[in-house]
Amino acid sequence: MKLLEQMVKNDGKVYPNNVLKVDSFINHQINPKLMLEMANSFYNYFKEKRVTKILTIEASGIAPAILVANLFDVPMVFAKKSVPSTLTRNSFYESTVHSYTKNVTNNIVVSKDFLSSEDRVLIIDDFLANGQAVLGLADLIRQAGGTLLGVGILIEKSFQDGRKLLEEKNIEVCSLCRLASLENEKIEFNLADDEK
Amino acid sequence: MKLLEQMVKNDGKVYPNNVLKVDSFINHQINPKLMLEMANSFYNYFKEKRVTKILTIEASGIAPAILVANLFDVPMVFAKKSVPSTLTRNSFYESTVHSYTKNVTNNIVVSKDFLSSEDRVLIIDDFLANGQAVLGLADLIRQAGGTLLGVGILIEKSFQDGRKLLEEKNIEVCSLCRLASLENEKIEFNLADDEK
Repeated sequence: MKLLEQMVKNDGKVYPNNVLKVDSFINHQINPKLMLEMANSFYNYFKEKRVTKILTIEASGIAPAILVANLFDVPMVFAKKSVPSTLTRNSFYESTVHSYTKNVTNNIVVSKDFLSSEDRVLIIDDFLANGQAVLGLADLIRQAGGTLLGVGILIEKSFQDGRKLLEEKNIEVCSLCRLASLENEKIEFNLADDEK
Repeated sequence: MKLLEQMVKNDGKVYPNNVLKVDSFINHQINPKLMLEMANSFYNYFKEKRVTKILTIEASGIAPAILVANLFDVPMVFAKKSVPSTLTRNSFYESTVHSYTKNVTNNIVVSKDFLSSEDRVLIIDDFLANGQAVLGLADLIRQAGGTLLGVGILIEKSFQDGRKLLEEKNIEVCSLCRLASLENEKIEFNLADDEK
């Protein structure tokens, strides 16, 4: 998506270790017009798929996911990183997500009430780097016996392993901005999936 | 809001200690149509206020907040419960929020880049119980020198102290569903602010 690339170019900040900070418009402050355009792009990309549910993970995935859910007119579910007091044992699906950036492993949970074998699920998340969050979400869908239809990503770090790991599992990925490199604090792009 | 009251009545579950579980449509799985109607109600209630920014706190506030931000066409900022690796010392406002439900105190932070003395801020959150989250957010706005215009709440527990604490500070509150009581697992309502 050209607008997103432009904003990454203008307002994104590159830090050592391939960190791209986009917190002025995506994951701390959010530009609602941009977010809505991104949601529209995902809708156009996946609209033939008979989606019944949008799945994301707290917290940065929630804003794009609710807008996509509005367009598909289906419920959105966000996986939680801790078990809510109202969820009892055996009432939820659980998986683990390792964050290489923060070097921590989180459990993620979704109540069994909100994912079923009937569900045809589109995963939405802000970043795809090593793919661990998406693989954790895909594992929750698998446990529920549901169908994973595809993954919509705002910004993909194409120089890391996530994309490859997902494609090896035949998971379709639509990334609206694909970073070829952040070397020397210079941002290089690949062609985004919605522009192919 | 009648639709919200109806859903609380039909799909909400009351647990001991005045816990109301609405995770089938508000804070785990989200009903996007309901969320959009709620956002519209906040917009109608506050539309004369010249809002420049929507402020909320991760994670359950994000979905209503982004929809409200879209209607006002202003940026949305969500306070974080941990300091992101990309925020350096002195680059953020910080306050504390005590959760009586979980009996933990969290620090909340917002980057100084995203709240300023120019900002006229509307706070959006899912629940108002003891008011601690809103008071923490109000403190961040105060530190920035900004103006707090009001607070939009999906579900208020009117039998707890939050509403009173906010009104003592002359903070205007619009709650779309006001719970008078959850005693004996029966849900009683007060008149919602958008219906007055």
